[in-house]
Amino acid sequence: MSKAEKYAVLGRNYDRFEGHDKVTGSAAYVADVFLPGMLTGRILRSPLPHARIRNIDTSRAEKLRGVKAVVTAEDTIKKGWGVFFPDQYPLSVGKARYVGEEVAAVAAVDRDTAEEALELIDVDWEELPAVFDAEEAMQDGAPLIHEEKENNIALTIDVERGDVDAAFKDSDLVVEETFESVPQWHSAIETIGSVAEYSANGKYTVYMNTQTLFMARMRLATALGVREADVRVIQTAVGGGFGGKSCDDNNAMVAAILARKARRPVKIINTREEEFLAGSRPRVNMKVWVRMGFKSDGRIRAKHMRIIADNGAYSGKAPAITGVAALRHDTCYKYSDVRSEAYLVYTNKIPTGAFRGFGNPSAEFSVEQMMDIAADELGMDPFEMARLNAADEGYVSPHGNRVISCELKQCIDRTERMIGWKEKRAARKPNRGLGMGCTVHVSGKRHFGDYDGSSATIKMNEDGKAFILSGEGETGQGHWTAMCQIAAEELGIPFSDVAISEADTDLTTFCLGNYASRLTYVAGNAVKNAATAVKEILFDTASEMLECDASDLVSRDGFIFVKGAEQRSISVADVVRGRQFRRGGAPVVASGSFDADSVTQDALRYGNESGAYNFGCQAAEVEVDPDTGHVKVIQYAVASDCGTVIYPIGAEGQVEGSIAQGLGYALIEGIRMEEGRPINPNFSDYRLASMRDMPDLVHEFADSYEPTGPFGAKGLGELGMDPVAAIISNAIYDAVGVRITTLPITAEKVLRALQEKKRNGS
Amino acid sequence: MSKAEKYAVLGRNYDRFEGHDKVTGSAAYVADVFLPGMLTGRILRSPLPHARIRNIDTSRAEKLRGVKAVVTAEDTIKKGWGVFFPDQYPLSVGKARYVGEEVAAVAAVDRDTAEEALELIDVDWEELPAVFDAEEAMQDGAPLIHEEKENNIALTIDVERGDVDAAFKDSDLVVEETFESVPQWHSAIETIGSVAEYSANGKYTVYMNTQTLFMARMRLATALGVREADVRVIQTAVGGGFGGKSCDDNNAMVAAILARKARRPVKIINTREEEFLAGSRPRVNMKVWVRMGFKSDGRIRAKHMRIIADNGAYSGKAPAITGVAALRHDTCYKYSDVRSEAYLVYTNKIPTGAFRGFGNPSAEFSVEQMMDIAADELGMDPFEMARLNAADEGYVSPHGNRVISCELKQCIDRTERMIGWKEKRAARKPNRGLGMGCTVHVSGKRHFGDYDGSSATIKMNEDGKAFILSGEGETGQGHWTAMCQIAAEELGIPFSDVAISEADTDLTTFCLGNYASRLTYVAGNAVKNAATAVKEILFDTASEMLECDASDLVSRDGFIFVKGAEQRSISVADVVRGRQFRRGGAPVVASGSFDADSVTQDALRYGNESGAYNFGCQAAEVEVDPDTGHVKVIQYAVASDCGTVIYPIGAEGQVEGSIAQGLGYALIEGIRMEEGRPINPNFSDYRLASMRDMPDLVHEFADSYEPTGPFGAKGLGELGMDPVAAIISNAIYDAVGVRITTLPITAEKVLRALQEKKRNGS
Repeated sequence: MSKAEKYAVLGRNYDRFEGHDKVTGSAAYVADVFLPGMLTGRILRSPLPHARIRNIDTSRAEKLRGVKAVVTAEDTIKKGWGVFFPDQYPLSVGKARYVGEEVAAVAAVDRDTAEEALELIDVDWEELPAVFDAEEAMQDGAPLIHEEKENNIALTIDVERGDVDAAFKDSDLVVEETFESVPQWHSAIETIGSVAEYSANGKYTVYMNTQTLFMARMRLATALGVREADVRVIQTAVGGGFGGKSCDDNNAMVAAILARKARRPVKIINTREEEFLAGSRPRVNMKVWVRMGFKSDGRIRAKHMRIIADNGAYSGKAPAITGVAALRHDTCYKYSDVRSEAYLVYTNKIPTGAFRGFGNPSAEFSVEQMMDIAADELGMDPFEMARLNAADEGYVSPHGNRVISCELKQCIDRTERMIGWKEKRAARKPNRGLGMGCTVHVSGKRHFGDYDGSSATIKMNEDGKAFILSGEGETGQGHWTAMCQIAAEELGIPFSDVAISEADTDLTTFCLGNYASRLTYVAGNAVKNAATAVKEILFDTASEMLECDASDLVSRDGFIFVKGAEQRSISVADVVRGRQFRRGGAPVVASGSFDADSVTQDALRYGNESGAYNFGCQAAEVEVDPDTGHVKVIQYAVASDCGTVIYPIGAEGQVEGSIAQGLGYALIEGIRMEEGRPINPNFSDYRLASMRDMPDLVHEFADSYEPTGPFGAKGLGELGMDPVAAIISNAIYDAVGVRITTLPITAEKVLRALQEKKRNGS
Repeated sequence: MSKAEKYAVLGRNYDRFEGHDKVTGSAAYVADVFLPGMLTGRILRSPLPHARIRNIDTSRAEKLRGVKAVVTAEDTIKKGWGVFFPDQYPLSVGKARYVGEEVAAVAAVDRDTAEEALELIDVDWEELPAVFDAEEAMQDGAPLIHEEKENNIALTIDVERGDVDAAFKDSDLVVEETFESVPQWHSAIETIGSVAEYSANGKYTVYMNTQTLFMARMRLATALGVREADVRVIQTAVGGGFGGKSCDDNNAMVAAILARKARRPVKIINTREEEFLAGSRPRVNMKVWVRMGFKSDGRIRAKHMRIIADNGAYSGKAPAITGVAALRHDTCYKYSDVRSEAYLVYTNKIPTGAFRGFGNPSAEFSVEQMMDIAADELGMDPFEMARLNAADEGYVSPHGNRVISCELKQCIDRTERMIGWKEKRAARKPNRGLGMGCTVHVSGKRHFGDYDGSSATIKMNEDGKAFILSGEGETGQGHWTAMCQIAAEELGIPFSDVAISEADTDLTTFCLGNYASRLTYVAGNAVKNAATAVKEILFDTASEMLECDASDLVSRDGFIFVKGAEQRSISVADVVRGRQFRRGGAPVVASGSFDADSVTQDALRYGNESGAYNFGCQAAEVEVDPDTGHVKVIQYAVASDCGTVIYPIGAEGQVEGSIAQGLGYALIEGIRMEEGRPINPNFSDYRLASMRDMPDLVHEFADSYEPTGPFGAKGLGELGMDPVAAIISNAIYDAVGVRITTLPITAEKVLRALQEKKRNGS
């Protein structure tokens, strides 16, 4: 019996909680929100990458019939917002810093009128010199994007643990390489949108497809100059997030400012082009130089990394992302002496933001190739080398990350078997190659207010059904289903007897939302704790009704039994009614909360950032067409340690989605910019991995149990994405002997490298 | 300093919580609910008062273009619903029992199509003999409306306390009279309506303008054959309830049945005619015979009452209403020997239901005239006689009602002064007369599931604002405002820092809703208890932050202070943030509940029905035109004991509204029926009291404090309505010497009585 089989509800598949609504078309996305008198909002965006605004004349636009409000920075409090640096405004104050920046906006009775009005807004621009490359932007004399930021540097990290120079001296092999990733867009099927309403009592209500409601509320309150509870954020159905809907953008703020001025609800939904220009903030692009030292037996001895990260014009979450790229992967292998330098640099491009992996894909693209390079140099099997260095239970990373559960070695073994490593290596085929890599991710991250917690309230209905109030929301990943399963398991009632609320900042307690693979672990613990508290109330009443000790009770399938005398039982419904409908009666309701046992990193960035770490190993088999450079991924194997699997089909979806998105990142995706202007902001020209790009995907979950997780569970959502690009590159090297260090690994790049290799006669 | 002045928030007027939405037109009533794909529902109603359905052919209706569903009883589970007797069906099963009964229904793309389709439904009726008068219906051989109910009697009450025969023998004066009231319609400005949606996951969502959400959910679940939590009831803004929206009707059930069949949302809003025919269930009409015995000093010695109550075709809440009419008023005066008989009788007319006063207006119309008759016979001043008999603190009625706080004598004194009784009696004017009467009402009533409680959850936002989750709802009376005041007072934060949720059965814990003047007392106690629990959490954290004992803390105006060292203080917002944003942090949230210390009446109808009783005295000065019989109410004085006044302007509104509705009941309102068919179901022909009917109204609240109430408060909403008709009748008698014992007291009746009196030479 595997660990999961002891559960009644966990580890089983159910129809997704909100599935019926989605497949029948009745789920309400932002586009489906219609309020009486609602207007359409459209945004005037900067056509220039860097330009001073001498004047904005909105008078012609205001006169257009059907226009109900035109707003500029003059309609705002001009107070900067931002999680880490408040460097951004809902509408440009003084100057615009990238092509697409929000300069003014219009609310009108329909979209045509609003767009016509945008053309009637006269902006007197003074173009300024711009800079688009992070390394150039760091040079003395480069145009300053934010005047107060010397050399356009937003953030510098320089962390050394141990004695890196000495460790390199002590190394038998030192390898060194520079890698460059590429900005990647989330490309969620639904673009960012919001409907904002302003009431006569001064309160804003904002329907938005956000991943992080309370964060959205906080930022809206800051930008609008009101208190948090003066803004109500209601999550609509969300058509994909991946970090892009974690509210780094201005969409909802502009809608709210328009709604206040027009005194009517305003809907703004990004077009696909706007989503590329200024909507979902793409992955932070990084240039990563790495130097690693190894002992001759394959053990890692030293690592030095230098990252130049392209912030774009404003900061959003990039400071945290850069920190993750610099430090997190050191939790995957056993390190003692490491140094990480990083520079986050402003450029006149779209601001960057959170994207599945949060810096880790850039780090793993470099380090997981370095491991492969070193194994090659040492003549070691990469799986052997990974096993040798792999983190284990009890490992504490040089930066303080404390690993409790860790089945990385199990994942390595499973992956090696699934991909048929030994067999395929023993019977090599031409132009075919194998690559592997390991990965680590967090289950939540403490970087806001010394808190990485969640809370939930559960109330029992008189029919025995439970209802969870939670503000974490559902972004399409199946979170609601997993939470219902956890509550059902703990309460001992059927899955179908649990429901969960839509996320709404008015109705639920504070929740941080969906990021950092935190929900199953953090929110799951909060829901479980609420369920435990509810169960205690139920057992208390049941013990009176069954005339026994509460400690003798168990619940299962909606009934509460006396242990060892199971004919003495009562339905949960009867207990709820029994407690409610009596003198001194009260409803069965309880709140639960959980805060991860992590710490906020100190000034030297030391500290255990997460309550639990998830691990994985992956391997790919590729075939390279030597005539075209085209890379075909034949098979892909994934083993993931996410602790107990709560909702298998949801977990599998995370694995499959991660690999698809990782393959897009590895092989396909990339925006082309000319002078800060994207020239392919659409899905004809910006291609994604699709079904036909998917290999034969085999995957397994490690038999694993995280003691601090809800029923042993931990995070999963980002883990799979992180190492894919490195693994594909490793496999290509194995197939045809060329190593591509910049993303995406296009056929053109591979072909050029093959031609170069041939020219060099190697 | 009056008792109220010690409060920071209570006893002061604020803009009503939902006031801005209402006055700016943005409050969403049922008519404002629009869901994608929503259809219009219309109902086919019985044209006959009593008729068997041989067959219903819906085929022609179904074929009409634009019709999406046609339903009859065949689309239902044919399970009866009803609070006391499950005698009613959403759509007629087998036969219809009154004109207007729901027989079939149509959902179509628009109203015209739906109405056209109704005409295409062919019902093969077999007309049955009908009975419209309750006394006739009780006769042997009368047509049986529900075959199993012998003599059409739904309920019989016969209660005797003490020895009534002996007490009459011991009386110095015995008076006897028969009174008859009139059915009164609530006439809320908004008719009953609902929008029902059926999801592919089997769950119904019903938006409705109900006063009692969880009761509605229960009845919908019963009628639809699902579990309670499979129905979500969301209260829209409510344009007046007065008992008529406490869900005795079929509107929402029919909408839900149509929505399930059409698989699209369906809206049904009653027309005004439907509201009279089968919508808001009118006041139970009663014929009341009373015999009372008095000692020569004016003390009540015995009372015997016999009530015949007209149930209409189905039972709804009439059984409870009949019980109230029979027993409650015995809490107003000190009684020892009483007998109450009552018969609730089915007739082929619209079912009756809850209406402000709930049986008490019929009782007070009779007993408060009996008091006046007796005072006249004894030559006593009615105020003196009221004072002599008035209930007092500690009084226990013969039926077990336990009075804790009681300022009835204070109300009598105040009313006597306000109306200028002595002065006006001393200087009588021709055709002018004065009348007075006393009244009692409950603050909640225990008649459901041995529970008369409420519950609420309060969560604190990180800005220090509180949010109350409550399912009691707002019916237009100002309940939300009072609850926010109670929470603000208890928490020590400004009124503007409290908000309250809309009522929604999914999101809130079980609440019984708005009836029996229960909300301020019962829900107010629950909110206060939740606030106390929240304050305890706040003080716990504040004591850490201020380094003091929690017991040394007080809160005021959003700050928490150390008693006696008020420079040591911290804002509530800082405390909430301090508790949330720290290691092991958690939101500040707590639930509170309250169940009144009442008991369910036993089989002999003995038992303290409510946690607290509210009392009042009123007096009227009228002028009667001897040539026309027209009665003009010159001045009206009201003194009410509702304990502490929480929201003065709301309380005043209750007083003024009660008197207006009472005057309509006394002088104006009345439906005319021909063979069970109302012939004046509209506001041209069914007149209400309007501004021009209102007298000079003077009112005061007694200085009062209910120890079991929230900050001393108790109920108020129905109290004022109850005695008005009797008082007007008493004043008319005082003016011109004729006593009218049937309602309404039209000019015609008065004139006839004057003519009769003249004929008799009296």
